[in-house]
Amino acid sequence: MALLDSLPDAVSVYEVSPRDGLQNEAAQVATHAKVRLIEALMDAGLRRIEIASFVSATWVPQMADADQVARLVPPSDGVRFSALCPNRRGLDRAQRAGVSEIAVFVSASETHNRKNVNKSIARTLKTFEGVIGPALDSGMTVRGYVSTMWGCPYEGEVDPQVGLQIARALLDQGCYQVSLGDTIGVGTPLQTRRILELFFREVPAHAVALHLHDTRGTALANVLVGLEMGVTTFDTSVGGLGGCPFAPGAAGNLATEDLVYALHGMGIDTGINLDRLWQAGQVASAIVGRDLPGKVHRAGIRALSR
Amino acid sequence: MALLDSLPDAVSVYEVSPRDGLQNEAAQVATHAKVRLIEALMDAGLRRIEIASFVSATWVPQMADADQVARLVPPSDGVRFSALCPNRRGLDRAQRAGVSEIAVFVSASETHNRKNVNKSIARTLKTFEGVIGPALDSGMTVRGYVSTMWGCPYEGEVDPQVGLQIARALLDQGCYQVSLGDTIGVGTPLQTRRILELFFREVPAHAVALHLHDTRGTALANVLVGLEMGVTTFDTSVGGLGGCPFAPGAAGNLATEDLVYALHGMGIDTGINLDRLWQAGQVASAIVGRDLPGKVHRAGIRALSR
Repeated sequence: MALLDSLPDAVSVYEVSPRDGLQNEAAQVATHAKVRLIEALMDAGLRRIEIASFVSATWVPQMADADQVARLVPPSDGVRFSALCPNRRGLDRAQRAGVSEIAVFVSASETHNRKNVNKSIARTLKTFEGVIGPALDSGMTVRGYVSTMWGCPYEGEVDPQVGLQIARALLDQGCYQVSLGDTIGVGTPLQTRRILELFFREVPAHAVALHLHDTRGTALANVLVGLEMGVTTFDTSVGGLGGCPFAPGAAGNLATEDLVYALHGMGIDTGINLDRLWQAGQVASAIVGRDLPGKVHRAGIRALSR
Repeated sequence: MALLDSLPDAVSVYEVSPRDGLQNEAAQVATHAKVRLIEALMDAGLRRIEIASFVSATWVPQMADADQVARLVPPSDGVRFSALCPNRRGLDRAQRAGVSEIAVFVSASETHNRKNVNKSIARTLKTFEGVIGPALDSGMTVRGYVSTMWGCPYEGEVDPQVGLQIARALLDQGCYQVSLGDTIGVGTPLQTRRILELFFREVPAHAVALHLHDTRGTALANVLVGLEMGVTTFDTSVGGLGGCPFAPGAAGNLATEDLVYALHGMGIDTGINLDRLWQAGQVASAIVGRDLPGKVHRAGIRALSR
């Protein structure tokens, strides 16, 4: 495999701003504003959008209106809306709201998983048996997240073998894809290669997505490694919406514009109109009432001075 | 060449914050504050530091105290201070101030070069004959910059062949290294590969450095390409000090901490203590009185929550 000789022709971008991007926002964002953001993202050409999370409103007040958001987004051919569901109760809400895809999530670090969902990894996977099966039975597709793959804020380094076992369990239960999360944005390129080498011994490339946070600026370098190794789905958030809860003021999700700018610069198709995507980033910024950290969002797409 | 199999064991970081970082700061930074920053960088292990620019104080008021800065920095074994010099007058000042290395600069884009130094590229190179030779004769080393290699804010795309001709002229005149600049931060990885492939047909890898701006988030991905192709010198600015003059609020220079974090994560030696480097970034931020865009600068090095 020569350097940059095995890049894919096309990449699928999985947009997480309405869910992962907004979930840590302290000020409640109005339902119609969330719908406006989702519409702007659709207008830019995004075809996979995680629109909400069906979790307890007590735990994540920002997602209390998930049912309304899901009902208000305009159905569109070729656009798949998904929603995060931790349990059967979440699935019931997702089904009633007409969402066609759900995402389940578990951490590769025991401590992070307990802090996040108050259960062991094993019990979380057991819970999913009552979620994934019924979801598939009702015609939904199911995606899985394995978070803290590159490191845990409580345990430090994480054994990628543990993440692989979890990913296999999720795929065995019926997830069509597992998205590996660098939840705290600590990953570097050789580490990414090691994780993917391990995975690709047992899992096909199309079943693996990368969900990278750009907290330490390494996300796009890790994307490059993923691209060369066969990954063709990347999770991003427009404008880089979604901070790092462990470092106020620091960046979180890789910005969709930054990914798409780099991909288009390498001739890789995304189906996304970058100008409209940039406009969607302006909507995101207006909705939360502050500057977002995305680089293309801040600098603009083109550099020509006028 | 397999993916990430040809990484170097060590990289030389060329720090530009006291010059490229500060030169666009509107508020005058006190001379002693500049010296404090340089000392903090030395304390972190940086061995190549561009401390000032001997240009007209009318054009760049921030560099009016270049002579004093050069006289006040403490000489240290193994540390090479350099200063930007556009002409013979600048060289005279650099020599009187005791600087051991100068850097000359020219743009690969005719319009950018004229806007920058009010001369054609050819006349600029001719001027350098009266700078580089005398500098070498006096025992100095000379480095060359070729800016706007990845794109020009006035002309758009730039022919890398033009940049190569300029680089060869600079090397022929006696520069030990040419630093290729993505001045406006538009470069993407395949473009970086194309530029380096062209250069390495005629120029040895040790004679080429990359001076990347992170304006659109691609700098570290481009570094990865450079590393794999044999580049071992990268120009950076602590904290990402130094904005993009064409996009207020946008990032400019690649942050030294972001580069070093990624390099150390891949086991590549830099001789730099990242904790002390982070402290130097705090000095830089305090000096200019505002937050800097560097990601590691903002997020911190380690992710463990306490």
